[in-house]
Amino acid sequence: MINVAIVGATGYTGMELIKILSKHSKVRLTALTTRQEKEIPVFSLIPSLSLKQPLFIKNYSYEEVSKKADVVFLCLPHTETVEAAYFFRKAGKIVIDLSADFRLKEALSYEKAYGVKHNRPEMLQQSVYGLSEFYRSKIKKSDFISNPGCYPTSILLPLIPLLEADVISLDGIVADSKSGVSGAGKKLSEATHFCQANENFLAYKVGRHQHQPEIEQGLSLAAGKSVKLTFVPHLLPLTRGILSTIYCHRKKGVASEKITQVLEKAYAKEFFVRFRGENNFPSLSDVQHTNFCDVGVFSSRESSQVIVVSAIDNLVKGASGQAVQNMNIRCGFSENEGF
Amino acid sequence: MINVAIVGATGYTGMELIKILSKHSKVRLTALTTRQEKEIPVFSLIPSLSLKQPLFIKNYSYEEVSKKADVVFLCLPHTETVEAAYFFRKAGKIVIDLSADFRLKEALSYEKAYGVKHNRPEMLQQSVYGLSEFYRSKIKKSDFISNPGCYPTSILLPLIPLLEADVISLDGIVADSKSGVSGAGKKLSEATHFCQANENFLAYKVGRHQHQPEIEQGLSLAAGKSVKLTFVPHLLPLTRGILSTIYCHRKKGVASEKITQVLEKAYAKEFFVRFRGENNFPSLSDVQHTNFCDVGVFSSRESSQVIVVSAIDNLVKGASGQAVQNMNIRCGFSENEGF
Amino acid sequence: MINVAIVGATGYTGMELIKILSKHSKVRLTALTTRQEKEIPVFSLIPSLSLKQPLFIKNYSYEEVSKKADVVFLCLPHTETVEAAYFFRKAGKIVIDLSADFRLKEALSYEKAYGVKHNRPEMLQQSVYGLSEFYRSKIKKSDFISNPGCYPTSILLPLIPLLEADVISLDGIVADSKSGVSGAGKKLSEATHFCQANENFLAYKVGRHQHQPEIEQGLSLAAGKSVKLTFVPHLLPLTRGILSTIYCHRKKGVASEKITQVLEKAYAKEFFVRFRGENNFPSLSDVQHTNFCDVGVFSSRESSQVIVVSAIDNLVKGASGQAVQNMNIRCGFSENEGF
Amino acid sequence: MINVAIVGATGYTGMELIKILSKHSKVRLTALTTRQEKEIPVFSLIPSLSLKQPLFIKNYSYEEVSKKADVVFLCLPHTETVEAAYFFRKAGKIVIDLSADFRLKEALSYEKAYGVKHNRPEMLQQSVYGLSEFYRSKIKKSDFISNPGCYPTSILLPLIPLLEADVISLDGIVADSKSGVSGAGKKLSEATHFCQANENFLAYKVGRHQHQPEIEQGLSLAAGKSVKLTFVPHLLPLTRGILSTIYCHRKKGVASEKITQVLEKAYAKEFFVRFRGENNFPSLSDVQHTNFCDVGVFSSRESSQVIVVSAIDNLVKGASGQAVQNMNIRCGFSENEGF
Repeated sequence: MINVAIVGATGYTGMELIKILSKHSKVRLTALTTRQEKEIPVFSLIPSLSLKQPLFIKNYSYEEVSKKADVVFLCLPHTETVEAAYFFRKAGKIVIDLSADFRLKEALSYEKAYGVKHNRPEMLQQSVYGLSEFYRSKIKKSDFISNPGCYPTSILLPLIPLLEADVISLDGIVADSKSGVSGAGKKLSEATHFCQANENFLAYKVGRHQHQPEIEQGLSLAAGKSVKLTFVPHLLPLTRGILSTIYCHRKKGVASEKITQVLEKAYAKEFFVRFRGENNFPSLSDVQHTNFCDVGVFSSRESSQVIVVSAIDNLVKGASGQAVQNMNIRCGFSENEGF
Repeated sequence: MINVAIVGATGYTGMELIKILSKHSKVRLTALTTRQEKEIPVFSLIPSLSLKQPLFIKNYSYEEVSKKADVVFLCLPHTETVEAAYFFRKAGKIVIDLSADFRLKEALSYEKAYGVKHNRPEMLQQSVYGLSEFYRSKIKKSDFISNPGCYPTSILLPLIPLLEADVISLDGIVADSKSGVSGAGKKLSEATHFCQANENFLAYKVGRHQHQPEIEQGLSLAAGKSVKLTFVPHLLPLTRGILSTIYCHRKKGVASEKITQVLEKAYAKEFFVRFRGENNFPSLSDVQHTNFCDVGVFSSRESSQVIVVSAIDNLVKGASGQAVQNMNIRCGFSENEGF
Repeated sequence: MINVAIVGATGYTGMELIKILSKHSKVRLTALTTRQEKEIPVFSLIPSLSLKQPLFIKNYSYEEVSKKADVVFLCLPHTETVEAAYFFRKAGKIVIDLSADFRLKEALSYEKAYGVKHNRPEMLQQSVYGLSEFYRSKIKKSDFISNPGCYPTSILLPLIPLLEADVISLDGIVADSKSGVSGAGKKLSEATHFCQANENFLAYKVGRHQHQPEIEQGLSLAAGKSVKLTFVPHLLPLTRGILSTIYCHRKKGVASEKITQVLEKAYAKEFFVRFRGENNFPSLSDVQHTNFCDVGVFSSRESSQVIVVSAIDNLVKGASGQAVQNMNIRCGFSENEGF
Repeated sequence: MINVAIVGATGYTGMELIKILSKHSKVRLTALTTRQEKEIPVFSLIPSLSLKQPLFIKNYSYEEVSKKADVVFLCLPHTETVEAAYFFRKAGKIVIDLSADFRLKEALSYEKAYGVKHNRPEMLQQSVYGLSEFYRSKIKKSDFISNPGCYPTSILLPLIPLLEADVISLDGIVADSKSGVSGAGKKLSEATHFCQANENFLAYKVGRHQHQPEIEQGLSLAAGKSVKLTFVPHLLPLTRGILSTIYCHRKKGVASEKITQVLEKAYAKEFFVRFRGENNFPSLSDVQHTNFCDVGVFSSRESSQVIVVSAIDNLVKGASGQAVQNMNIRCGFSENEGF
């Protein structure tokens, strides 16, 4: 039984963490924080959550949180998390950060992607990238886990095995991703006004989304050399889920069946990544409200074309679910405990 | 051919007016205004509108508007319209006001409903209530038309004939109304965030919606004595439309068939109110993007229960469409010109 | 640990039962049946369900089901369930029937509502009406539970305490109910085609819905005399949930605060019915995917008007969730086990 | 003034034609046909259509249609249109076919794509492919126009100018297309059940959609040599619209700005294709219910990557709107007459 805090508990990722952790048999939620002065009952924030006893979100100081918890989940906005992570790491806590502040391992990339200088660049290398299925052994030993972005999770999970097995070309990888509106967060904006998003669909940040360097970093590490990809995110008129359609090419000499074999083998023992097989593609409804990443593949017999489709829930496997999975790994619990 | 201005052209009702009037054969749109400094091309606001030549929304002063237009539509927020109406009336313009500021004929009711004192109470009686089908003769002669609210339109249109014919009881009238999200306007709010409104449904302002006195005023005028109703608005997860389900009772001695006969006769010659007959009820899709109000009725053979269902598009018959209909009436055009 | 069968496991209520029962700590799902010849893996039907081990739906005969299970949930179409219930009751099984076939206690009412003669009218009185909160003591002792309809559940739960306390008038009760599309079942129909239901809203079966006699039966039992109500169901453009807005009147001499007091007391110890208090109304999102029934109330200070709003998930508290709650009651498990 | 028939008027494309043509100033709708025995008032099929006088859909024989009309729109299912086209061409009518039966110019391709032998292969070369903007001169002179598919229209309109200008590589073109549910037609199916499509998103027919050969035929004609593309269609949870995100590469030596210049020039004089410029991308809401095809482009400065996004309404520019545009071209009317 461990004591767990969620710093920034009122946003979508904080709320999703509450939902998962309040049913986790090894966890005591000892501190849920907000910057608002007034205490917030979890019931009023998430009425659909069935709680055995009332929970409250309070304006705790970091010092108070430190006294109350062993594991601290950070659900703060990007560019505002650096100091919080510094504080809790210094206090010896296990920190799982859901922001983007420690995902990129080079300060310069961070500055370019997020538009601000990183104030503690020395910490970038200290954190482990929490893509559970591929960084498991490092996560097990780390007290500072930087949880991946939602788009990167949906793209890296299916591509890493193909790159590691050296069966696809590093050139010309295209990821066409479609996300539900919750990916844009709880903040009010014109784009997320119901009348704007409803019955609508669009591409956004074409060629300049801040997740692109994170994806390229992950692909490059898997390939052992620099990989560039083309990435276009789109906004779906639904609340939850990301479906990524990924286009790439088999390397010369690689049989078309090889692609399926590689993916089958890679995920054979994984609980949360479900390879659906050749020509069997997932729908968002297959993974919504779950920590699953479902993957299907088409590998052309007539050309070198490979098409991979992956589906996740952006708030679960793409954020809070994977964060809990990482906590399970780090704390020695069963990896699917709480799901 | 008349010169027309829309003051406050960037909100939902202003935009809808642009859509209708830009296709109206007797209208020249000579001034579209905004409080924003920068000129806005109509194309960027309503890309789906097919315009033969570009139109612009500008930061015109009221003086400039006065010089440019004979008819002025006011699409300003409630409680902020009084001075604009005063200005344009003084300038001798035909004013069609889409706000709520002149709908209630008593200053006290206004203050109670909208929480502010009315600054020009003497103007309340000067304006004509623009429920086209029932105030046509007054509208024809008035230069100051106060356009009805969306909920009131959906409730008054079916009930007024029944009250005028004295066939339903004045007691126990219940209107259960359901509106699309555009009814809440373009302003950002938690309730209209996509993730909040999508896949959701709720009642709001139960027993205290600001439209209630307007509805009761209209019913009372039709009945010739004070009528109270119970009114509950609800928020639908769709963009456009209001469907009102109205419960009332036949007066003693009135045959159940009489209800249908009264409604049939009332709307027989109306273009925009379509009585669908007994046990034939409209869907919102029947009226979306139109100026129609469709009405169906159930009149029990076993009890005195009468159920009337009405459907309108809240932005058309419930706002801008009816405003243009009123302009047509006032200016001697065919009533369905532009539709 | 009990052995449980679901007869007709591929419809919406069957699927929902699988979801709940596969996580229930006291239940072994030993037989899931379909009329289709081919075995269906639960994974292919409900990919989002996280199962520790594979489950299959098979074309079991009733005899086979009898051998495998102690408790049998019947999820068959209305009018086709009578013989199945007869078979499993004769075999000594605990039967929980989710169809409408045993809800009405008089064969004549059944025939009128469902258009067919009841073949085993003698069984109607043998079954207990499974509205958990109000028939708990009978359910505890019964081997034949007829699970309530979704609309009736949403209307009876808030009204029964008011009728039992004799604080509202029996005349003029109106229930305006709005249901998500899953309420229409999985069968294909024009009304449930996406392009028909999306962005749409309508009233249907006005004055003639088959649930009306079931509601009136429940109200009459609570009141101790015959109660009639006016009931209009509507179709919402969303998948799950029923929100009922119920209009009634306080009896003469009853203080307006009394209504709140009665409801507060009635539900004080209930886990699944949550009275939200005066002027605090539930949204569908508060109860979707839960077994909760949330209730809010408005009790006018100026008139006798009382407005009650209730919200449930039609597939959970309105069907399969309540069925499991009834199983929990019958089998002596904690009532919220599995939720 | 011409006399026009719609054969197969009750499906989505037939209905959309009625909507457009009933407002077309040069058209008399003289025959609307159905296979159903009973006459159908247009009002009951499209209640939102505002008609000056009632219209009816009847079970006319082809002979009757021939007597009544000069121009015949065929809105029959794929593989069932061949004989109708033969009949009306033989009768000397101007035929505009909205099915896929005459789009592919080689019988073998047709057989492969649609799974049936083409019964009148000699007619394939007689029809003109009705992609209005690029086949205008042929359409002007043809009495037999085969209207393009919805996906092909959204992909060919932006790509043809780039291929004709020889600025993009013929290899590695990827079109990731997303369509609203109306693209699947009015026929009932599990995939289009509201509860299945709502809040969902998926790829389908990956690598084997029947529109692929039609797209490749159009691209090859523009390039002057064989072009293959990778095409993946997806199903959006909304009613109308197709957005295609198209990935391709600039040819060596082509400046990145050149792409924008080519598109700008190509559409400069087009009314219905609106090039939105570099890094300015359309939303579906910009084109829904219109005959516009909006196009935006990204042309990388750092690599050869070009991304084109196009948006159309699948039922208008993707079907009935383009069919009317073709009629306008053929009959010498203003091309945007009726829109």
